[in-house]
Amino acid sequence: MIDHTDGLGRSGCPIATTLDLVGDKWSLVVVRDMLNGKKRFGEFLESPEGIPTNILANRLKRMEESGVLSKKPYQERPTRFAYALTERGESLLPILQAMCRWGNTQFPDTWTAPESFMKRRA
Amino acid sequence: MIDHTDGLGRSGCPIATTLDLVGDKWSLVVVRDMLNGKKRFGEFLESPEGIPTNILANRLKRMEESGVLSKKPYQERPTRFAYALTERGESLLPILQAMCRWGNTQFPDTWTAPESFMKRRA
Repeated sequence: MIDHTDGLGRSGCPIATTLDLVGDKWSLVVVRDMLNGKKRFGEFLESPEGIPTNILANRLKRMEESGVLSKKPYQERPTRFAYALTERGESLLPILQAMCRWGNTQFPDTWTAPESFMKRRA
Repeated sequence: MIDHTDGLGRSGCPIATTLDLVGDKWSLVVVRDMLNGKKRFGEFLESPEGIPTNILANRLKRMEESGVLSKKPYQERPTRFAYALTERGESLLPILQAMCRWGNTQFPDTWTAPESFMKRRA
């Protein structure tokens, strides 16, 4: 596991550093869901992309470790957690908005994000 | 392999569709290098992140298949290729710029991208 305590992974490049943390097929899909109000493990599983349970658990753990999200219990016996984006996680919004624009422009059959999402400020 | 002829992979979400194509640790590092003028296989290998040869070959092939880049031979016996971003690939620039801003803001020790990169238009 890369040590991100100084924020530097493979190199000091901010793009590579970003990709060290969220450069995979699933992390930003979960961040998208959290920006849209989802909070619970089961809610993330319901998204149309069909994230596998083990990958979801791994990505939530990684993003908690890198300070993108935090979790707190909302129920005991059994303990269940609610996940929330930190300020660091919320500030990923412009990256997701840029991906929406690119996806919509390059692949016209993709869904158009609500204006409220595209105009939101991080 | 996901069929991207209609632009839709795991779902119609433009974020998920973008991640289907470039959602990994390396593809956008190579796109960064190409935006900065690198063209040849050996040049990509020299970047400080140290991309492994087999991963580089795989990512170049995938990005060619998805229309992000094109290649043409610049030498024969042995044939060597030069890689160039297509219009689709060039238009990834705003995503990379957003990653630079996020990386620089969240991890102050990361390198600051040249103003010419940050102000460039796709």
